[in-house]
Order: sequence, then C-alpha cells, then structure tokens
Amino acid sequence: MGDGFEKHAWIFTLGTELAQGRVINTNGSYIGRRLTLLGVKVIGIVTIIDNVDLISKYLMLVLNEGPRFIVTTGGLGPTYDDRTLEAIAKALNRKLVLNVEALEMVRRKYEERKMPLTPERMKMAYLPEGGVPVPNPVGTAPGCWIEYGETVIVSLPGVPREMEAMWENWVEPRLRKLLPPIHIAEAFAKIIGVPESSLAIQLNRIAQEYEKVYVKSHPLGEELGKPVINIYVMASGEESSLASKLAQEVLGKIIDYAQHLGGSVTGVELRVS
Amino acid sequence: MGDGFEKHAWIFTLGTELAQGRVINTNGSYIGRRLTLLGVKVIGIVTIIDNVDLISKYLMLVLNEGPRFIVTTGGLGPTYDDRTLEAIAKALNRKLVLNVEALEMVRRKYEERKMPLTPERMKMAYLPEGGVPVPNPVGTAPGCWIEYGETVIVSLPGVPREMEAMWENWVEPRLRKLLPPIHIAEAFAKIIGVPESSLAIQLNRIAQEYEKVYVKSHPLGEELGKPVINIYVMASGEESSLASKLAQEVLGKIIDYAQHLGGSVTGVELRVS
Repeated sequence: MGDGFEKHAWIFTLGTELAQGRVINTNGSYIGRRLTLLGVKVIGIVTIIDNVDLISKYLMLVLNEGPRFIVTTGGLGPTYDDRTLEAIAKALNRKLVLNVEALEMVRRKYEERKMPLTPERMKMAYLPEGGVPVPNPVGTAPGCWIEYGETVIVSLPGVPREMEAMWENWVEPRLRKLLPPIHIAEAFAKIIGVPESSLAIQLNRIAQEYEKVYVKSHPLGEELGKPVINIYVMASGEESSLASKLAQEVLGKIIDYAQHLGGSVTGVELRVS
Repeated sequence: MGDGFEKHAWIFTLGTELAQGRVINTNGSYIGRRLTLLGVKVIGIVTIIDNVDLISKYLMLVLNEGPRFIVTTGGLGPTYDDRTLEAIAKALNRKLVLNVEALEMVRRKYEERKMPLTPERMKMAYLPEGGVPVPNPVGTAPGCWIEYGETVIVSLPGVPREMEAMWENWVEPRLRKLLPPIHIAEAFAKIIGVPESSLAIQLNRIAQEYEKVYVKSHPLGEELGKPVINIYVMASGEESSLASKLAQEVLGKIIDYAQHLGGSVTGVELRVS
C-alpha cells in the first residue's frame, strides 16, 4: 500500500448503540490514532450490532487479511448483549473458559464492596482459551489479550474511560515491545483561496513521487467561493530527523504550488513523535 | 434478529483519516440515526482506508448479506484518493462512465465562478453505469444513487455539511417512498445506585420476553462505588400509540426492578417520532 508501514491492524468497535448512531464512535478514533503513532497501519474500523454470528463472521474475514493486530472495544460487560469474547472464541474455534486470573480480578472488585459473585458477574471472567486477562483499573470487566497465529487480538471494554486507562497502562507498553521503534512526523498547513480541485493535480503528482509519505487534503470552506483546505502530511521512519525532513519537503512543495496558484498559507506546523 | 425490523442497512464511512483517528466518525452516527428513525435496522458501519481493492472487497461481502440499503460517505472529491465510486463500480462489475447529468451539475458550478472544467473536476462526474447523480447544494461533487438487485447504494461526500444537506433534501424523501410508514418510541431513564451487573438479570429476562423491543444499559458512573446507568428502550410500530405503549411498559418494568433493588430513578423521558 505504498506508505512504508509493515504492520497492519483492524479495529472492531462493537455495539448496537454505535450502529444506531446514539453514541458517536470516539473509541475508533482513539485507537486508530494510538496505533498510527506506534507505526501500525490501521486498515479499517468495523462496527457491528451485538450479534455473535455476525461479529465472528467479520472477525474471520478480517483475520484472513493477516493483520498483526485486531483491537476490539465493547461487549465485555455483564449484560445479555455483551458477547464479544464469545464471538472471538467462535471465530478462533476455541472454547470460552472460566479464566482463574480474570475471576480473581472480578471477585476482588465485588468483595471490596461486600457484593456477591453472581452468574452475571462471573460471566465477565470467561475468556477464549489461551486468553490473558487485561486488568481494568476503572471498572470491573477485564479485557483480554489473545495470540492467534501471527495476530494479536486485544479486547477492551466500550466505556471510553475504562478502555483508555487499560490501553495506556497495559496494552500500549506490550505493543511497544513487539514493534520496532518508530518516529512519526506530521506537517500541517492551511491553504486559503485555492479550490481543492486545482490543488489536486499537484497532490496526485506527490502521491506518485513520494510513496512513503501520506498526504491528505481536507476541504473546510467551500470549493467555490472562499475555499479553505487543511493539508496533512505524514512521514515515518526509524530516525525522527529523516521523518521530519521528508514531511517538511512534501509540505513545502504543496505550499509552493498553492502560492503559485495565488493562494495564501497559514498555520504551518510540524509535530514529531 | 428479533427486533421487528425487516429492512437492513450497512454504512461505509470511507477515508484513511477516519481509520487513522484524525477525524472522529460523526457521519456514521448521523446516518445510523437517520436510518434507525426510518425503521431501517443498521447492521454495521465499516471504515476502510482509501484503497479501491479493499473497499470493493468489503462492499461485495456486505452485498452478499442482502441489505436493502448501503450508504457510503467520503471519496467523491477531485483528488487521487477519492475513489469510492470506482470501488462500487468494481464491486458491482459495472463500468465507471461519464454521466451527462452529473457533468452538467459540475460544469455549472465551476462556470458560475468562471473556472475551467479540468480533468480533476470532470472526474467527479464519473458514476458507475446506471447511477443517478444526487445534487450537492453545498459543494461540487455530486452523490450517486444506484440500484443493484434488491439493494440501493447511496454515495455521499464525506464533508458533513454537504452530506447532511444531500441526505435531508434528496436522499431521505426518496427512502421514505420505499419504506412503510413507521413510528419509533424511545424511552429513557437514569438509574442511580444499582450496579449494572445487578440489573443485568432483569434486562436478560426482558430481552427474552419482549423480542421486538430493544433494551440497552449504558454505565456512566462506576459499576462499584456510585453506579449510574442510562437505560434506553426502543420500540417501533405502524402506530405510534402502540410503539409508545410497548416502550413505556418495558421501561416501567426496569424501573420497578431498580427501585426494588434500592436504586433511585431520574430523567424518565419518552420520545415518539
């Protein structure tokens, strides 16, 4: 796919409330962003209603793409429609088994509050065979880390506060150990007064010339009238100096061209991580 | 799937910027919401990077599910990575052809501004064979409406302002003609002081008893400590009185049970559309 990334990922953000548009999918963009900054290329984000057969079907299809990572959010709680781990077990043809370590995590949480371990609460401790529970410092449902061939499947709860805490404290440190060190350089500019369709010629040329740089134009104003376009350039490399040089070089060419077409440029910025 | 909906839909929100998490996917929730309120059951929302082969592959997989509607957003503009209609043409095994009506829409827009019709601008007038252009009152790229067997595929731009104007002015009036009249009743309540895992028993019972009602609990506070749960109940029917009676009945049962467990209830609300 011509952008220098070797490791691919898919994200599954699960929940009928997302498909029905009652909840905006901020988990997808959170994880998409975190993976991108680790140098992982996110191929897609799939939302599916709370239906085990459909979820496992699309998990299997995506597994066939051979991704390095699949991250799921949602469907780990105590209610009847929280069935993500069941769907993963089905997709991997593994059993869902009571995980002793996960049960201990759940039991301890409720014990502290002097609450009994009901079947609904124990449900949260069933993981697909081979799964490692991910501690949940905020809520009660543990996450799950499973290795399947070359793919790591990480499942986290759908509540953003829980999911983000688990990502930052537990998941990302483990992903970093599996991935080569990488630096990402992002260059931004705002171009005023040039329609996107005029700029398009130059963007097409750059896409062909710089295979390993990602360039995107986002029209903000109106294409006609007073066009405003945000330009985003991303380059990555083992050395941050190289990545930032490449991003700046490409942004420079776009700016030169926009000015040549009579546009003005503001908000030039470079971020390296 | 046990909730009274006959018509299924999938949404494709296309764009590398969505997969990379630089843009939050508000288009998916907008369309998910609008379709739900038309009585259409949204099964999934798929985001894929700007890659024709991958997009057409997943379009074909979803077409095999036999949905009544597929709505796509993004990838209609003038740049090299705007290739949604090419992917649809490929998935349907149709040619991408210059559409005279779409060309006229694009030509007129640029002519008003005394701007020439370049190849990048003409690109926006190529639709899959059989496609009907959807006027864009805000921007320049027309949308596309294609019928393929029992499925209608509607493609709209990714810029939310353009997409929403086209949905409201052109797409939704046409969808309403294809769909039976429907009323949706939604009932809401906030339950304080009952952990979701305690409520789960009753929610499981209700899901079994009321097959045609959708019930979802959203934990807001902490499961332990001070739990706060938003309850959402949705029922639909040809008559609004029936739908609202059903939604109220189910919410009432949940509230009774929560109070029985010592919880307090606020924010009870019923919306009928």
